[in-house]
Amino acid sequence: MPERIAIIGLGLIGGSVARGLRARGHEGVLVGCVRTPADADRALALGLVDEAGTDAAVAVAGADLVVVAVPIGAMADTLATIAPALAPAAAVTDVGSTKLSVIAEARAGLGERFARFVPGHPIAGTEHSGLEAGFAELYAGRRVILTPTAETDADALATVTGLWHGLGARVTEMGAAHHDEVLAATSHLPHVLAFALVDSLARMAERTEIFDYAAGGFADFTRIASSDPTLWSDIVGANRDAILPVLSRYIGDLETLRAAIEQGERAPLMDCFGRAKQARDRFTAARGG
Amino acid sequence: MPERIAIIGLGLIGGSVARGLRARGHEGVLVGCVRTPADADRALALGLVDEAGTDAAVAVAGADLVVVAVPIGAMADTLATIAPALAPAAAVTDVGSTKLSVIAEARAGLGERFARFVPGHPIAGTEHSGLEAGFAELYAGRRVILTPTAETDADALATVTGLWHGLGARVTEMGAAHHDEVLAATSHLPHVLAFALVDSLARMAERTEIFDYAAGGFADFTRIASSDPTLWSDIVGANRDAILPVLSRYIGDLETLRAAIEQGERAPLMDCFGRAKQARDRFTAARGG
Repeated sequence: MPERIAIIGLGLIGGSVARGLRARGHEGVLVGCVRTPADADRALALGLVDEAGTDAAVAVAGADLVVVAVPIGAMADTLATIAPALAPAAAVTDVGSTKLSVIAEARAGLGERFARFVPGHPIAGTEHSGLEAGFAELYAGRRVILTPTAETDADALATVTGLWHGLGARVTEMGAAHHDEVLAATSHLPHVLAFALVDSLARMAERTEIFDYAAGGFADFTRIASSDPTLWSDIVGANRDAILPVLSRYIGDLETLRAAIEQGERAPLMDCFGRAKQARDRFTAARGG
Repeated sequence: MPERIAIIGLGLIGGSVARGLRARGHEGVLVGCVRTPADADRALALGLVDEAGTDAAVAVAGADLVVVAVPIGAMADTLATIAPALAPAAAVTDVGSTKLSVIAEARAGLGERFARFVPGHPIAGTEHSGLEAGFAELYAGRRVILTPTAETDADALATVTGLWHGLGARVTEMGAAHHDEVLAATSHLPHVLAFALVDSLARMAERTEIFDYAAGGFADFTRIASSDPTLWSDIVGANRDAILPVLSRYIGDLETLRAAIEQGERAPLMDCFGRAKQARDRFTAARGG
Protein backbone atom coordinates (compact mmCIF):
# COMPACT_ATOMS: atom_id res chain seq x y z
CA MET A 1 0.00 0.00 0.00
CA PRO A 2 1.38 3.46 -0.85
CA GLU A 3 2.84 5.44 2.02
CA ARG A 4 1.15 8.77 1.44
CA ILE A 5 -2.40 8.78 0.10
CA ALA A 6 -4.35 11.93 -0.76
CA ILE A 7 -8.12 11.73 -0.87
CA ILE A 8 -9.85 14.64 -2.58
CA GLY A 9 -13.36 14.73 -1.16
CA LEU A 10 -14.27 13.03 2.13
CA GLY A 11 -17.97 12.37 1.57
CA LEU A 12 -19.57 8.94 1.57
CA ILE A 13 -17.15 7.49 -0.98
CA GLY A 14 -13.88 9.24 -0.06
CA GLY A 15 -14.68 9.15 3.65
CA SER A 16 -15.24 5.39 3.45
CA VAL A 17 -11.87 4.96 1.72
CA ALA A 18 -10.24 6.86 4.59
CA ARG A 19 -12.11 4.96 7.29
CA GLY A 20 -11.46 1.64 5.54
CA LEU A 21 -7.71 2.29 5.27
CA ARG A 22 -7.58 3.18 8.97
CA ALA A 23 -9.64 0.20 10.04
CA ARG A 24 -7.51 -2.18 7.98
CA GLY A 25 -4.27 -0.93 9.49
CA HIS A 26 -2.80 1.36 6.85
CA GLU A 27 0.21 2.93 8.54
CA GLY A 28 1.06 5.69 6.09
CA VAL A 29 -0.15 9.28 5.99
CA LEU A 30 -3.68 10.11 4.85
CA VAL A 31 -4.24 13.59 3.48
CA GLY A 32 -7.76 14.89 2.91
CA CYS A 33 -9.03 17.78 0.85
CA VAL A 34 -12.49 19.20 1.54
CA ARG A 35 -14.45 22.28 0.53
CA THR A 36 -14.31 24.48 3.63
CA PRO A 37 -11.93 25.06 6.55
CA ALA A 38 -14.74 23.99 8.88
CA ASP A 39 -14.97 20.66 7.05
CA ALA A 40 -11.21 20.26 7.31
CA ASP A 41 -11.39 20.75 11.09
CA ARG A 42 -14.27 18.31 11.27
CA ALA A 43 -12.43 15.70 9.20
CA LEU A 44 -9.46 15.91 11.57
CA ALA A 45 -11.73 15.78 14.61
CA LEU A 46 -13.42 12.68 13.20
CA GLY A 47 -9.99 11.13 12.71
CA LEU A 48 -10.64 10.51 9.04
CA VAL A 49 -7.20 11.78 7.92
CA ASP A 50 -3.87 12.96 9.34
CA GLU A 51 -3.79 16.20 7.40
CA ALA A 52 -6.70 18.15 5.94
CA GLY A 53 -7.08 21.30 3.91
CA THR A 54 -9.09 22.93 1.15
CA ASP A 55 -6.46 23.17 -1.60
CA ALA A 56 -6.32 20.07 -3.77
CA ALA A 57 -2.91 21.00 -5.20
CA VAL A 58 -1.45 21.19 -1.69
CA ALA A 59 -3.11 17.90 -0.72
CA VAL A 60 -1.61 15.90 -3.58
CA ALA A 61 1.94 17.25 -3.24
CA GLY A 62 4.20 14.32 -2.40
CA ALA A 63 1.38 11.77 -2.47
CA ASP A 64 2.08 8.31 -3.90
CA LEU A 65 -1.60 7.76 -4.63
CA VAL A 66 -4.38 10.28 -5.19
CA VAL A 67 -8.03 9.25 -4.91
CA VAL A 68 -10.30 11.84 -6.50
CA ALA A 69 -13.62 11.31 -4.74
CA VAL A 70 -15.48 14.42 -5.80
CA PRO A 71 -18.88 14.54 -7.54
CA ILE A 72 -18.88 14.08 -11.32
CA GLY A 73 -19.62 17.79 -11.76
CA ALA A 74 -16.42 18.80 -9.93
CA MET A 75 -14.14 16.26 -11.63
CA ALA A 76 -12.77 18.37 -14.49
CA ASP A 77 -11.80 21.31 -12.28
CA THR A 78 -10.26 19.05 -9.65
CA LEU A 79 -8.12 17.15 -12.14
CA ALA A 80 -6.88 20.37 -13.73
CA THR A 81 -6.07 21.77 -10.29
CA ILE A 82 -4.00 18.81 -9.13
CA ALA A 83 -2.16 18.12 -12.41
CA PRO A 84 0.78 20.53 -11.89
CA ALA A 85 1.26 19.43 -8.26
CA LEU A 86 1.38 15.67 -8.82
CA ALA A 87 4.60 13.78 -8.12
CA PRO A 88 5.81 12.10 -11.33
CA ALA A 89 5.35 8.62 -9.86
CA ALA A 90 1.97 9.30 -8.29
CA ALA A 91 -0.92 7.11 -9.35
CA VAL A 92 -4.29 8.87 -9.63
CA THR A 93 -7.72 7.30 -9.59
CA ASP A 94 -11.31 8.46 -9.34
CA VAL A 95 -14.58 6.99 -8.10
CA GLY A 96 -17.00 8.55 -10.58
CA SER A 97 -20.20 6.79 -11.64
CA THR A 98 -19.52 7.47 -15.32
CA LYS A 99 -16.25 6.62 -17.01
CA LEU A 100 -16.11 7.91 -20.59
CA SER A 101 -16.80 11.45 -19.41
CA VAL A 102 -14.19 11.25 -16.64
CA ILE A 103 -11.59 9.79 -19.01
CA ALA A 104 -12.14 12.71 -21.39
CA GLU A 105 -11.79 15.16 -18.52
CA ALA A 106 -8.68 13.39 -17.20
CA ARG A 107 -7.07 13.39 -20.62
CA ALA A 108 -7.68 17.14 -20.90
CA GLY A 109 -6.90 18.03 -17.28
CA LEU A 110 -3.96 15.78 -16.49
CA GLY A 111 -2.14 16.22 -19.79
CA GLU A 112 1.11 14.25 -19.81
CA ARG A 113 0.18 12.63 -16.49
CA PHE A 114 -2.84 10.92 -18.07
CA ALA A 115 -1.01 7.58 -18.25
CA ARG A 116 -0.87 7.60 -14.43
CA PHE A 117 -4.66 7.91 -14.20
CA VAL A 118 -6.68 4.76 -13.53
CA PRO A 119 -10.42 5.36 -14.05
CA GLY A 120 -12.38 3.58 -11.33
CA HIS A 121 -15.86 3.10 -9.92
CA PRO A 122 -16.70 1.30 -6.68
CA ILE A 123 -20.17 -0.25 -6.99
CA ALA A 124 -21.18 0.66 -3.48
CA GLY A 125 -22.98 3.47 -1.78
CA THR A 126 -25.97 4.57 0.21
CA GLU A 127 -28.39 7.44 -0.24
CA HIS A 128 -26.47 9.44 2.38
CA SER A 129 -23.73 11.97 1.77
CA GLY A 130 -21.33 14.18 3.70
CA LEU A 131 -18.40 13.82 6.08
CA GLU A 132 -20.33 11.62 8.50
CA ALA A 133 -21.81 9.30 5.87
CA GLY A 134 -18.84 7.00 5.28
CA PHE A 135 -18.03 3.73 7.02
CA ALA A 136 -15.01 1.45 6.97
CA GLU A 137 -16.73 -1.61 5.53
CA LEU A 138 -18.58 0.09 2.64
CA TYR A 139 -16.37 -1.69 0.11
CA ALA A 140 -15.98 -5.07 1.82
CA GLY A 141 -17.06 -7.74 -0.63
CA ARG A 142 -18.29 -5.15 -3.14
CA ARG A 143 -17.18 -4.78 -6.73
CA VAL A 144 -14.93 -2.05 -8.02
CA ILE A 145 -14.77 -1.58 -11.78
CA LEU A 146 -11.56 -0.19 -13.26
CA THR A 147 -11.61 0.98 -16.87
CA PRO A 148 -7.95 1.50 -17.86
CA THR A 149 -7.24 2.81 -21.34
CA ALA A 150 -4.55 1.60 -23.73
CA GLU A 151 -2.33 4.35 -22.33
CA THR A 152 -2.70 3.49 -18.65
CA ASP A 153 0.59 2.54 -16.96
CA ALA A 154 0.62 -1.02 -15.62
CA ASP A 155 2.11 -0.05 -12.28
CA ALA A 156 -0.47 2.69 -11.68
CA LEU A 157 -3.15 0.09 -12.40
CA ALA A 158 -1.48 -2.29 -9.94
CA THR A 159 -1.34 0.40 -7.24
CA VAL A 160 -5.04 1.25 -7.60
CA THR A 161 -6.02 -2.43 -7.74
CA GLY A 162 -4.04 -2.91 -4.52
CA LEU A 163 -5.89 -0.04 -2.85
CA TRP A 164 -9.28 -1.62 -3.47
CA HIS A 165 -8.12 -5.12 -2.58
CA GLY A 166 -6.83 -3.60 0.65
CA LEU A 167 -10.33 -2.31 1.35
CA GLY A 168 -11.82 -5.76 0.83
CA ALA A 169 -13.30 -5.11 -2.61
CA ARG A 170 -13.35 -7.34 -5.69
CA VAL A 171 -11.78 -5.61 -8.67
CA THR A 172 -12.93 -6.10 -12.27
CA GLU A 173 -11.61 -4.45 -15.42
CA MET A 174 -13.76 -3.57 -18.40
CA GLY A 175 -13.96 -0.98 -21.16
CA ALA A 176 -15.28 2.44 -20.18
CA ALA A 177 -18.08 2.41 -22.77
CA HIS A 178 -19.28 -0.96 -21.53
CA HIS A 179 -19.15 0.23 -17.92
CA ASP A 180 -21.28 3.22 -18.82
CA GLU A 181 -23.91 1.03 -20.52
CA VAL A 182 -24.12 -1.44 -17.63
CA LEU A 183 -24.36 1.30 -15.01
CA ALA A 184 -26.93 3.23 -17.05
CA ALA A 185 -29.17 0.16 -16.78
CA THR A 186 -28.58 -0.87 -13.17
CA SER A 187 -28.01 2.43 -11.43
CA HIS A 188 -28.61 5.60 -13.43
CA LEU A 189 -31.98 4.58 -14.87
CA PRO A 190 -33.34 3.36 -11.49
CA HIS A 191 -32.33 6.68 -9.90
CA VAL A 192 -34.16 8.63 -12.62
CA LEU A 193 -37.24 6.42 -12.19
CA ALA A 194 -37.29 6.77 -8.41
CA PHE A 195 -36.78 10.54 -8.47
CA ALA A 196 -39.50 10.88 -11.12
CA LEU A 197 -41.99 8.77 -9.16
CA VAL A 198 -41.57 10.57 -5.86
CA ASP A 199 -41.75 13.92 -7.63
CA SER A 200 -44.84 12.81 -9.53
CA LEU A 201 -46.60 11.79 -6.31
CA ALA A 202 -45.39 14.86 -4.43
CA ARG A 203 -47.08 17.06 -7.01
CA MET A 204 -50.43 15.34 -6.52
CA ALA A 205 -52.91 17.45 -4.57
CA GLU A 206 -53.36 14.94 -1.77
CA ARG A 207 -49.64 14.36 -1.39
CA THR A 208 -49.42 14.41 2.39
CA GLU A 209 -52.06 11.77 2.71
CA ILE A 210 -50.55 9.69 -0.06
CA PHE A 211 -47.25 9.39 1.72
CA ASP A 212 -49.11 8.60 4.96
CA TYR A 213 -50.38 5.39 3.41
CA ALA A 214 -47.12 4.29 1.83
CA ALA A 215 -45.65 1.10 3.22
CA GLY A 216 -42.29 -0.62 3.39
CA GLY A 217 -42.27 -1.54 -0.29
CA PHE A 218 -42.59 2.12 -1.18
CA ALA A 219 -39.82 3.05 1.25
CA ASP A 220 -37.46 0.55 -0.38
CA PHE A 221 -38.49 1.48 -3.91
CA THR A 222 -37.87 5.16 -3.33
CA ARG A 223 -34.81 5.02 -1.08
CA ILE A 224 -32.52 6.13 -3.93
CA ALA A 225 -34.72 9.21 -4.42
CA SER A 226 -33.09 10.55 -1.24
CA SER A 227 -29.77 10.71 -3.09
CA ASP A 228 -28.08 14.03 -3.80
CA PRO A 229 -29.90 15.87 -6.65
CA THR A 230 -26.83 17.79 -7.86
CA LEU A 231 -24.66 14.71 -7.98
CA TRP A 232 -27.30 12.80 -9.90
CA SER A 233 -28.12 15.58 -12.32
CA ASP A 234 -24.43 15.61 -13.22
CA ILE A 235 -24.22 11.82 -13.54
CA VAL A 236 -27.26 11.73 -15.83
CA GLY A 237 -25.82 14.55 -17.93
CA ALA A 238 -22.42 12.87 -18.12
CA ASN A 239 -23.83 9.48 -19.14
CA ARG A 240 -26.61 10.78 -21.34
CA ASP A 241 -25.65 8.69 -24.38
CA ALA A 242 -25.93 5.43 -22.46
CA ILE A 243 -28.99 6.42 -20.42
CA LEU A 244 -31.19 7.62 -23.29
CA PRO A 245 -31.53 4.22 -25.03
CA VAL A 246 -32.43 2.32 -21.83
CA LEU A 247 -34.80 5.08 -20.73
CA SER A 248 -36.48 5.08 -24.15
CA ARG A 249 -36.84 1.32 -24.13
CA TYR A 250 -38.26 1.43 -20.61
CA ILE A 251 -40.83 4.06 -21.57
CA GLY A 252 -41.79 1.83 -24.51
CA ASP A 253 -42.21 -1.14 -22.17
CA LEU A 254 -44.45 0.95 -19.89
CA GLU A 255 -46.54 2.03 -22.89
CA THR A 256 -47.03 -1.64 -23.78
CA LEU A 257 -48.09 -2.47 -20.24
CA ARG A 258 -50.42 0.53 -20.13
CA ALA A 259 -52.12 -0.63 -23.32
CA ALA A 260 -52.56 -4.12 -21.87
CA ILE A 261 -54.02 -2.73 -18.63
CA GLU A 262 -56.34 -0.43 -20.60
CA GLN A 263 -57.64 -3.33 -22.68
CA GLY A 264 -57.99 -5.61 -19.68
CA GLU A 265 -55.46 -8.12 -21.05
CA ARG A 266 -54.00 -10.19 -18.26
CA ALA A 267 -51.44 -12.30 -20.16
CA PRO A 268 -48.95 -9.49 -20.89
CA LEU A 269 -48.91 -8.56 -17.20
CA MET A 270 -48.40 -12.17 -16.11
CA ASP A 271 -45.57 -12.57 -18.65
CA CYS A 272 -43.78 -9.38 -17.63
CA PHE A 273 -44.28 -9.80 -13.88
CA GLY A 274 -43.33 -13.49 -14.02
CA ARG A 275 -40.10 -12.89 -15.96
CA ALA A 276 -39.25 -10.04 -13.60
CA LYS A 277 -39.79 -12.12 -10.48
CA GLN A 278 -37.60 -14.93 -11.88
CA ALA A 279 -34.80 -12.50 -12.71
CA ARG A 280 -35.11 -10.69 -9.37
CA ASP A 281 -35.08 -13.95 -7.43
CA ARG A 282 -31.98 -15.13 -9.34
CA PHE A 283 -30.33 -11.79 -8.54
CA THR A 284 -31.17 -12.19 -4.85
CA ALA A 285 -29.83 -15.76 -4.81
CA ALA A 286 -26.61 -14.64 -6.52
CA ARG A 287 -26.14 -11.99 -3.83
CA GLY A 288 -26.47 -14.70 -1.20
CA GLY A 289 -30.08 -14.08 -0.21
CA MET B 1 -62.01 -10.31 20.59
CA PRO B 2 -64.37 -12.85 18.98
CA GLU B 3 -64.19 -16.39 20.30
CA ARG B 4 -64.01 -18.29 17.02
CA ILE B 5 -62.12 -16.72 14.13
CA ALA B 6 -61.86 -18.27 10.68
CA ILE B 7 -59.01 -17.19 8.43
CA ILE B 8 -59.39 -18.10 4.77
CA GLY B 9 -55.88 -18.21 3.35
CA LEU B 10 -52.80 -18.54 5.57
CA GLY B 11 -50.18 -16.85 3.39
CA LEU B 12 -48.20 -13.80 4.38
CA ILE B 13 -51.26 -11.74 5.29
CA GLY B 14 -53.57 -14.39 6.79
CA GLY B 15 -50.70 -16.25 8.39
CA SER B 16 -49.55 -13.07 10.08
CA VAL B 17 -53.07 -12.50 11.44
CA ALA B 18 -52.98 -16.02 12.92
CA ARG B 19 -49.49 -15.63 14.34
CA GLY B 20 -50.30 -12.18 15.70
CA LEU B 21 -53.46 -13.38 17.45
CA ARG B 22 -51.51 -16.24 19.04
CA ALA B 23 -48.62 -14.04 20.10
CA ARG B 24 -50.95 -11.48 21.64
CA GLY B 25 -52.78 -14.07 23.69
CA HIS B 26 -56.02 -14.68 21.83
CA GLU B 27 -57.64 -17.57 23.69
CA GLY B 28 -60.39 -18.52 21.27
CA VAL B 29 -60.36 -21.00 18.43
CA LEU B 30 -58.54 -20.21 15.18
CA VAL B 31 -59.75 -22.04 12.09
CA GLY B 32 -57.70 -21.93 8.90
CA CYS B 33 -58.63 -22.73 5.33
CA VAL B 34 -55.92 -23.47 2.79
CA ARG B 35 -55.74 -24.87 -0.73
CA THR B 36 -54.45 -28.41 -0.21
CA PRO B 37 -54.62 -31.09 2.51
CA ALA B 38 -50.82 -30.95 2.69
CA ASP B 39 -50.99 -27.22 3.44
CA ALA B 40 -53.61 -27.92 6.12
CA ASP B 41 -51.28 -30.42 7.78
CA ARG B 42 -48.43 -27.95 7.53
CA ALA B 43 -50.51 -25.11 9.02
CA LEU B 44 -51.37 -27.32 12.00
CA ALA B 45 -47.75 -28.46 12.36
CA LEU B 46 -46.62 -24.81 12.34
CA GLY B 47 -49.18 -24.11 15.05
CA LEU B 48 -50.81 -21.37 13.00
CA VAL B 49 -54.36 -22.51 13.76
CA ASP B 50 -56.31 -24.99 15.88
CA GLU B 51 -58.29 -26.45 13.01
CA ALA B 52 -57.40 -26.49 9.33
CA GLY B 53 -59.04 -27.71 6.15
CA THR B 54 -59.57 -26.96 2.50
CA ASP B 55 -63.31 -26.16 2.45
CA ALA B 56 -64.04 -22.51 3.15
CA ALA B 57 -67.69 -23.18 3.90
CA VAL B 58 -66.73 -25.69 6.60
CA ALA B 59 -64.14 -23.28 8.00
CA VAL B 60 -66.58 -20.41 8.50
CA ALA B 61 -69.37 -22.47 10.07
CA GLY B 62 -69.90 -21.14 13.59
CA ALA B 63 -67.23 -18.47 13.30
CA ASP B 64 -67.85 -15.09 14.93
CA LEU B 65 -65.38 -13.39 12.62
CA VAL B 66 -64.16 -14.41 9.18
CA VAL B 67 -60.99 -12.94 7.69
CA VAL B 68 -60.83 -13.56 3.95
CA ALA B 69 -57.11 -13.40 3.21
CA VAL B 70 -57.04 -14.82 -0.30
CA PRO B 71 -55.53 -13.15 -3.38
CA ILE B 72 -57.72 -10.62 -5.19
CA GLY B 73 -58.27 -13.14 -8.00
CA ALA B 74 -59.83 -15.68 -5.64
CA MET B 75 -62.02 -13.23 -3.74
CA ALA B 76 -65.28 -13.55 -5.68
CA ASP B 77 -65.32 -17.36 -5.56
CA THR B 78 -64.40 -17.44 -1.89
CA LEU B 79 -67.10 -14.98 -0.86
CA ALA B 80 -69.75 -16.89 -2.84
CA THR B 81 -68.59 -20.16 -1.26
CA ILE B 82 -68.79 -18.97 2.33
CA ALA B 83 -72.04 -16.96 2.05
CA PRO B 84 -74.49 -19.81 2.74
CA ALA B 85 -72.40 -21.14 5.65
CA LEU B 86 -71.99 -17.87 7.58
CA ALA B 87 -73.60 -17.53 11.00
CA PRO B 88 -76.09 -14.63 10.94
CA ALA B 89 -74.06 -12.64 13.46
CA ALA B 90 -70.67 -13.31 11.89
CA ALA B 91 -68.62 -10.32 10.81
CA VAL B 92 -66.63 -10.78 7.61
CA THR B 93 -63.64 -8.79 6.43
CA ASP B 94 -61.03 -9.05 3.73
CA VAL B 95 -57.45 -7.85 3.25
CA GLY B 96 -57.46 -7.11 -0.48
CA SER B 97 -55.27 -4.39 -1.98
CA THR B 98 -58.19 -2.98 -3.99
CA LYS B 99 -61.49 -2.08 -2.43
CA LEU B 100 -64.09 -1.06 -5.05
CA SER B 101 -63.64 -4.38 -6.84
CA VAL B 102 -63.89 -6.40 -3.62
CA ILE B 103 -66.98 -4.48 -2.51
CA ALA B 104 -68.68 -5.28 -5.82
CA GLU B 105 -67.76 -8.95 -5.44
CA ALA B 106 -68.91 -9.01 -1.82
CA ARG B 107 -72.24 -7.42 -2.71
CA ALA B 108 -72.77 -10.07 -5.39
CA GLY B 109 -71.36 -13.01 -3.45
CA LEU B 110 -72.61 -12.37 0.08
CA GLY B 111 -76.11 -11.23 -0.89
CA GLU B 112 -78.14 -10.42 2.20
CA ARG B 113 -75.06 -10.84 4.39
CA PHE B 114 -73.34 -7.91 2.67
CA ALA B 115 -74.09 -5.58 5.60
CA ARG B 116 -71.88 -7.81 7.78
CA PHE B 117 -68.93 -7.31 5.42
CA VAL B 118 -66.25 -4.76 6.36
CA PRO B 119 -63.85 -4.08 3.46
CA GLY B 120 -60.31 -3.80 4.78
CA HIS B 121 -56.71 -3.45 3.71
CA PRO B 122 -53.68 -3.70 6.02
CA ILE B 123 -50.88 -1.53 4.61
CA ALA B 124 -48.18 -4.02 5.39
CA GLY B 125 -46.43 -6.79 3.60
CA THR B 126 -43.17 -8.13 2.24
CA GLU B 127 -42.23 -9.58 -1.12
CA HIS B 128 -42.57 -13.09 0.33
CA SER B 129 -45.59 -15.36 0.23
CA GLY B 130 -46.72 -18.75 1.47
CA LEU B 131 -47.44 -20.50 4.76
CA GLU B 132 -44.00 -19.72 6.17
CA ALA B 133 -43.95 -16.04 5.17
CA GLY B 134 -46.05 -14.57 7.97
CA PHE B 135 -44.87 -13.18 11.29
CA ALA B 136 -46.69 -12.04 14.41
CA GLU B 137 -45.56 -8.42 14.33
CA LEU B 138 -46.30 -7.68 10.67
CA TYR B 139 -49.12 -5.32 11.66
CA ALA B 140 -47.59 -3.74 14.74
CA GLY B 141 -47.67 0.02 14.29
CA ARG B 142 -48.85 -0.30 10.68
CA ARG B 143 -51.96 1.23 9.18
CA VAL B 144 -55.09 -0.69 8.28
CA ILE B 145 -57.60 1.06 6.04
CA LEU B 146 -61.26 0.08 6.38
CA THR B 147 -63.68 1.25 3.70
CA PRO B 148 -67.18 0.58 5.09
CA THR B 149 -70.14 1.37 2.85
CA ALA B 150 -73.38 3.07 3.89
CA GLU B 151 -74.83 -0.40 4.42
CA THR B 152 -72.11 -1.74 6.69
CA ASP B 153 -73.38 -2.70 10.17
CA ALA B 154 -71.78 -0.66 12.95
CA ASP B 155 -71.12 -3.68 15.16
CA ALA B 156 -69.40 -5.60 12.33
CA LEU B 157 -67.22 -2.54 11.80
CA ALA B 158 -66.44 -2.45 15.54
CA THR B 159 -65.52 -6.14 15.55
CA VAL B 160 -63.12 -5.77 12.63
CA THR B 161 -61.62 -2.57 14.06
CA GLY B 162 -61.03 -4.48 17.30
CA LEU B 163 -59.28 -7.29 15.45
CA TRP B 164 -56.71 -4.92 13.95
CA HIS B 165 -56.26 -2.94 17.15
CA GLY B 166 -55.61 -6.25 18.85
CA LEU B 167 -52.82 -6.91 16.35
CA GLY B 168 -51.21 -3.57 17.15
CA ALA B 169 -52.31 -1.76 13.98
CA ARG B 170 -53.68 1.76 13.56
CA VAL B 171 -57.09 1.76 11.88
CA THR B 172 -58.28 4.48 9.49
CA GLU B 173 -61.56 4.69 7.61
CA MET B 174 -61.94 6.19 4.16
CA GLY B 175 -64.05 5.79 1.04
CA ALA B 176 -63.23 2.83 -1.19
CA ALA B 177 -62.66 4.97 -4.30
CA HIS B 178 -60.25 7.18 -2.41
CA HIS B 179 -58.42 4.15 -1.03
CA ASP B 180 -58.02 2.78 -4.54
CA GLU B 181 -56.55 6.06 -5.81
CA VAL B 182 -54.10 6.40 -2.94
CA LEU B 183 -52.94 2.80 -3.22
CA ALA B 184 -52.65 3.03 -7.01
CA ALA B 185 -50.09 5.79 -6.46
CA THR B 186 -48.11 4.41 -3.53
CA SER B 187 -48.23 0.68 -4.12
CA HIS B 188 -49.71 -0.53 -7.40
CA LEU B 189 -47.80 1.86 -9.67
CA PRO B 190 -44.44 1.20 -7.94
CA HIS B 191 -44.99 -2.56 -8.35
CA VAL B 192 -45.70 -2.13 -12.07
CA LEU B 193 -42.59 0.05 -12.45
CA ALA B 194 -40.32 -2.36 -10.60
CA PHE B 195 -41.60 -5.43 -12.48
CA ALA B 196 -41.21 -3.55 -15.78
CA LEU B 197 -37.66 -2.44 -15.01
CA VAL B 198 -36.37 -5.86 -13.99
CA ASP B 199 -38.07 -7.45 -16.99
CA SER B 200 -36.63 -4.78 -19.28
CA LEU B 201 -33.10 -5.44 -17.99
CA ALA B 202 -33.57 -9.22 -17.97
CA ARG B 203 -34.36 -9.07 -21.69
CA MET B 204 -31.11 -7.25 -22.48
CA ALA B 205 -28.52 -9.49 -24.13
CA GLU B 206 -25.90 -9.00 -21.45
CA ARG B 207 -28.35 -9.58 -18.64
CA THR B 208 -26.24 -11.84 -16.45
CA GLU B 209 -23.44 -9.35 -16.38
CA ILE B 210 -25.80 -6.44 -15.80
CA PHE B 211 -27.15 -8.00 -12.63
CA ASP B 212 -23.59 -8.82 -11.54
CA TYR B 213 -22.85 -5.12 -11.31
CA ALA B 214 -26.03 -4.08 -9.57
CA ALA B 215 -25.57 -2.70 -6.08
CA GLY B 216 -27.65 -2.19 -2.95
CA GLY B 217 -29.69 0.63 -4.43
CA PHE B 218 -30.83 -1.66 -7.20
CA ALA B 219 -31.66 -4.42 -4.72
CA ASP B 220 -33.88 -2.04 -2.74
CA PHE B 221 -35.46 -0.51 -5.83
CA THR B 222 -36.41 -3.88 -7.26
CA ARG B 223 -37.34 -5.76 -4.07
CA ILE B 224 -41.06 -5.51 -4.87
CA ALA B 225 -40.38 -7.15 -8.25
CA SER B 226 -39.98 -10.41 -6.29
CA SER B 227 -43.67 -10.22 -5.38
CA ASP B 228 -46.15 -12.81 -6.64
CA PRO B 229 -46.92 -12.22 -10.36
CA THR B 230 -50.41 -13.74 -10.25
CA LEU B 231 -51.45 -11.73 -7.22
CA TRP B 232 -50.18 -8.53 -8.78
CA SER B 233 -51.65 -9.14 -12.21
CA ASP B 234 -55.00 -9.49 -10.47
CA ILE B 235 -54.51 -6.36 -8.36
CA VAL B 236 -53.58 -4.30 -11.41
CA GLY B 237 -56.57 -5.64 -13.30
CA ALA B 238 -58.91 -4.98 -10.37
CA ASN B 239 -57.69 -1.42 -9.84
CA ARG B 240 -57.21 -0.54 -13.49
CA ASP B 241 -59.33 2.64 -13.38
CA ALA B 242 -57.20 4.18 -10.63
CA ILE B 243 -53.86 2.91 -11.95
CA LEU B 244 -54.20 4.11 -15.55
CA PRO B 245 -54.23 7.86 -14.77
CA VAL B 246 -51.18 7.72 -12.47
CA LEU B 247 -49.32 5.45 -14.88
CA SER B 248 -50.11 7.79 -17.77
CA ARG B 249 -48.98 10.82 -15.82
CA TYR B 250 -45.79 9.05 -14.83
CA ILE B 251 -45.02 8.10 -18.43
CA GLY B 252 -45.58 11.76 -19.35
CA ASP B 253 -43.16 12.85 -16.62
CA LEU B 254 -40.56 10.41 -17.92
CA GLU B 255 -41.03 11.74 -21.47
CA THR B 256 -40.37 15.26 -20.15
CA LEU B 257 -37.22 14.11 -18.37
CA ARG B 258 -36.07 12.21 -21.44
CA ALA B 259 -36.43 15.34 -23.57
CA ALA B 260 -34.44 17.36 -21.03
CA ILE B 261 -31.67 14.73 -20.96
CA GLU B 262 -31.63 14.56 -24.76
CA GLN B 263 -31.24 18.33 -25.04
CA GLY B 264 -28.63 18.50 -22.31
CA GLU B 265 -30.82 20.68 -20.07
CA ARG B 266 -29.77 20.39 -16.46
CA ALA B 267 -32.40 22.56 -14.74
CA PRO B 268 -35.38 20.21 -15.23
CA LEU B 269 -33.36 17.36 -13.71
CA MET B 270 -32.28 19.46 -10.74
CA ASP B 271 -35.88 20.59 -10.18
CA CYS B 272 -37.34 17.10 -10.36
CA PHE B 273 -34.59 15.38 -8.37
CA GLY B 274 -34.56 18.17 -5.77
CA ARG B 275 -38.33 18.09 -5.19
CA ALA B 276 -38.18 14.30 -5.00
CA LYS B 277 -35.41 14.25 -2.42
CA GLN B 278 -37.28 16.78 -0.27
CA ALA B 279 -40.46 14.72 -0.39
CA ARG B 280 -38.62 11.45 0.20
CA ASP B 281 -36.70 12.89 3.16
CA ARG B 282 -39.96 14.20 4.69
CA PHE B 283 -41.49 10.76 4.21
CA THR B 284 -38.50 9.14 5.94
CA ALA B 285 -38.69 11.63 8.82
CA ALA B 286 -42.43 10.99 9.21
CA ARG B 287 -41.74 7.26 9.44
CA GLY B 288 -39.27 7.98 12.24
CA GLY B 289 -36.09 7.72 10.18
